[in-house]
This record gives sequence, structure tokens and C-alpha cells, in this order.
Amino acid sequence: MKRAAGARSPRARATRARLKLRPPADHARAIGIFDSGIGGLTVVRAVRKLLPNENLIYLGDTGRYPYGTKSADVVRRYSFENTEFLIEKHVKMLVVACNTSSSLALEDLQERYAVPVIGVIEPGVQAAVQATRNRKVGVIATEGTIRSGEYTRGLRRLRSDLEIYTRACPLFVPLAEEGWVDNQVAHLAAQAYLGSMAQSGIDTLILGCTHYPLLRAVIRDIVGDGVRLIDSGEVTAAVVREMLTQRGILRRGGTGAGSFFVTDAPERFMKVGSRFLGGPVDAVQIER
Amino acid sequence: MKRAAGARSPRARATRARLKLRPPADHARAIGIFDSGIGGLTVVRAVRKLLPNENLIYLGDTGRYPYGTKSADVVRRYSFENTEFLIEKHVKMLVVACNTSSSLALEDLQERYAVPVIGVIEPGVQAAVQATRNRKVGVIATEGTIRSGEYTRGLRRLRSDLEIYTRACPLFVPLAEEGWVDNQVAHLAAQAYLGSMAQSGIDTLILGCTHYPLLRAVIRDIVGDGVRLIDSGEVTAAVVREMLTQRGILRRGGTGAGSFFVTDAPERFMKVGSRFLGGPVDAVQIER
Repeated sequence: MKRAAGARSPRARATRARLKLRPPADHARAIGIFDSGIGGLTVVRAVRKLLPNENLIYLGDTGRYPYGTKSADVVRRYSFENTEFLIEKHVKMLVVACNTSSSLALEDLQERYAVPVIGVIEPGVQAAVQATRNRKVGVIATEGTIRSGEYTRGLRRLRSDLEIYTRACPLFVPLAEEGWVDNQVAHLAAQAYLGSMAQSGIDTLILGCTHYPLLRAVIRDIVGDGVRLIDSGEVTAAVVREMLTQRGILRRGGTGAGSFFVTDAPERFMKVGSRFLGGPVDAVQIER
Repeated sequence: MKRAAGARSPRARATRARLKLRPPADHARAIGIFDSGIGGLTVVRAVRKLLPNENLIYLGDTGRYPYGTKSADVVRRYSFENTEFLIEKHVKMLVVACNTSSSLALEDLQERYAVPVIGVIEPGVQAAVQATRNRKVGVIATEGTIRSGEYTRGLRRLRSDLEIYTRACPLFVPLAEEGWVDNQVAHLAAQAYLGSMAQSGIDTLILGCTHYPLLRAVIRDIVGDGVRLIDSGEVTAAVVREMLTQRGILRRGGTGAGSFFVTDAPERFMKVGSRFLGGPVDAVQIER
């Protein structure tokens, strides 16, 4: 017997019939967001702020975090697995909130899946190119993202005459997770990482890792007020709104709900994550 | 047809016959050592120094590193997979160089496998109990190890009247990997983590993570000369020698060789690892 779409079991079909439910319309479906762990919650925070009506489903791959030190092949494989999980939840759009995944797996994901897929790199690149006046742009990110060269390529593609300065800042992630965002350790680490960058004359700095917005204040202290800081989360949220509007699937009413899934250690995710989200976060562990 | 042990295929059997090889005698077999990543190389270094004749096979699970923030179940599963890899290489003994694995998976491994299996916790615990004069002992380690309570239980089991102070120091791992073991960032982080510990009156401090011996100098600066620092690697190497001697399988001649396997990113392992091993390190990636 052939079953109607959306009615996978007799019981589900009966329930649907009783409640006169139909599969949700495109605009009512959730936005799927995945990250290697906790950092992507800064993207969730920005999307929520800009698009409070949207439903969000977040997957943090805390069981295999961090991606920043892993190879391209492994990051690509993990990214596909995360995407499969969200696609099965019928998301209307996918946001790759992890800079490392965005730099290594985005094109492959866009090729395979029908829903629009955006990363956090291209929005940051576009915002930086629009922001700079003196053509000197800095990028800070994880080792994996910097090594991929994706920011540099993206910036040059849009504007070939830029002077680009890049730096991996491995301590920023544990500092953000530890909540050490304002103490002397954070300040000195920022000084060590960004001292030369501050002397380079850049007027725009891309915070190319979702953890880094938490350290905005100490970064600002080192690079000075004259440098525009580009927060991946904020500029990505703007692109999400633009794409949903273009496709006519923006949700215009109701209060958006958020569902949070992790692949390991939900307690830690909830504890540390509340700092990233700017409020309490609930999470369920998925078994793999 | 039943095949003789050690001759798994006709080709292998033919090769053996031609070279008149026999399975290696017990004392000639390698010691297997696994860790979540790079840190276990400090254990390798200590074992090499004490037992220069022994062959060593090392597996660093860099593809899933770090274990310190993962749950007990996941760490146990990964530990079994790592052990399987080494058992298939016919090691004569297994050293669990990762403190997190040692605290969460050691007993399960000892139950399942016939070869002797030792971790890095019990040797550290024994050395600390022997070293302390005033019964005040400190333990620093990853979040996972501290949360497991394994050091505290081990110390109390040997001596119930100890005063025990514990502290997770999450920044020490990235500091060691970054090579920031001697600068002001490292000093301030150590001050923040160990300032109260230094005031507690401890006379013995267990460095309960294989990364921490690289930060020995800054740790020493904060806790002072009166505190005995217990390096897991060094005390574990002593236990390895003792066990091999007892069982009559110590290798007494020849120069020991080392083989290094990782589950991801061998270039990074070799670059960062040389600081941990105190010399160049070669590595091969295994596919999973």
C-alpha cells in the first residue's frame, strides 16, 4: 500500500486526520542551524534578535567538537552528517554556523541539498568589503579556518586590491567557554594575538569564529575604536532574512521556538551555552 | 584447514616461512600507548627515557580530541576502539596515557583484555601519597577528569585522612599546544587557577593531565618550591618498568623504536608533538 507523504505510520496518519493537520507550509518550517559545538549559539542569538517569529532547530556536535584542529575530509564528513539530521526535520533553510565547516564543506552541501544553505564566511566577507575604507582588512579565526584560506579567497574575489592580515587565535575559544572574557588573561592573550594586527593599519576586522564575539570588549581594547568589528552572527542573520524574504518564506507572525540538540554532554552545553545565547538554553542529547 | 596462529593468509604464511620468522617473543613485543591526542607524548618521552630498549606503538585520537569535555559513555567507547587498534598490533602491555580515559575506562579495559593495562591516575595517586608529609594534596586536571572524582577516590582509598584540593584548568591544554608555556599569559592563567591552591598549604600537587608538565615552570612559580609536583608520565614510566620486570618481559637489549599513529591531521601532530616529545616525531594517519 502506498502511503501519502507525511503519513509514515497508520498511527501518525490517524493522528493527522483527527487533528486535520497538514504538513507545515514552507514559511512555518524551521530554520536549521548546526555548529561544531556551543559557539553557533551566538548566531542563534543574532537570528532570534532579527527574526523573532522564526522557529529554529540547532544541532551542536559537542561529541566531536572542536572542528578547528581537524582535517578538511573529516570536517566535511561531520558536516554532512549534521546536515542530514536537520534535513530530516524538514527545515526550510540551513545555516552552517561553524566557520570551519563553512570554509571546508559549504559548496558540497549546497550542491547536494535543495534547501538554501548559507555559511558564516560569505556574509562576513561581504560586510567587510562594504565596511573598509582603506582596503586593509584583518581576519581572526581558528587554525583550521585560517589554514583553509577561505576568507582570503572570498575577500579577494570581491575586491582584488585588498591588503589582508590573518591570525589564528587558539586561546580565544577556551577563554570564551571559561567565561574569561574580561580579565587580564584575556587581555594579554588578545595583546599577544592582535598586537601586530593593531599596528597594521586595518580599519576592519572579521571575527571569523563564533566564539569571538564574547571577547569583543578585549579585542576592541587592543585594536582601538577606529576598527570596525564584523560579527559573523549579526551579518549572517541579515542574509538569512534577505533569503527568506526573496523566497517568500519568511514567517511574519507568532513567537519563534527553539529546539537544541547536542551529540554529547548536554549539561555542559546548557551551562556554558547560556553565556553564548544570552539566556537559558535547554538541550537534548541525540545518540549516534 | 586450520591455520597456525600468526599466519593469517597463505601469503603471510609463505613470507614467514621464507624469512624463518616466528611470532616475536613476549619481551620483544611493543608497549602500546594511547591518548586522546598529543598530550600522551609526554608519557612516551618518560617511558623512552627510563626504558630505552622498549619498542613503543602510540595512537593519538586526534580526530576526536579532546576527551576532557566529553561524557563518560563516549570516552569509554573511544577508549575501547583505541585499545582494539593496539591489541591487533600484538602489544605486550597497554598504557592509557590519557587521564580522562584512565579515570573513566580503565577498569572496563582491564576486565576485557588479557594484557596488563595501566593508566596514569593510579601511579600519580601512589606517588602523591608517598610524597606528602602534611597530608595536603592538590590535583589539577581537565574538567572531565576532575568531574569523574577518580583522583579523589584513589587518594582516599590509599589514605583516608588526606585533605584534597582539586581544580580544573581548561586553558592549560591550549597554552601547552600553542607553546605559550613561559609567557605572561601562561603566568596569569596559572595565577588565576592556582592562586588559592597555593594558599591551601598543600605540599604535593598532581599534574593530572599529560599536557601540564610543559607548564611545570609557571606552575612552580605560583605554588612555590616547597610543593612536590607529581608528573603522571614519570611515575607511570616507573610502574611500566616494574610490571614488565615482574612478568619477565622487559626488553634488555637493542634500541627501542617508536611508531606513531593518529586519527586525523598528522602534520599538526608532528609540529606540536615535537615540543611534547622533546624531539622530532613522525606520524601516520589511520582511516576509520
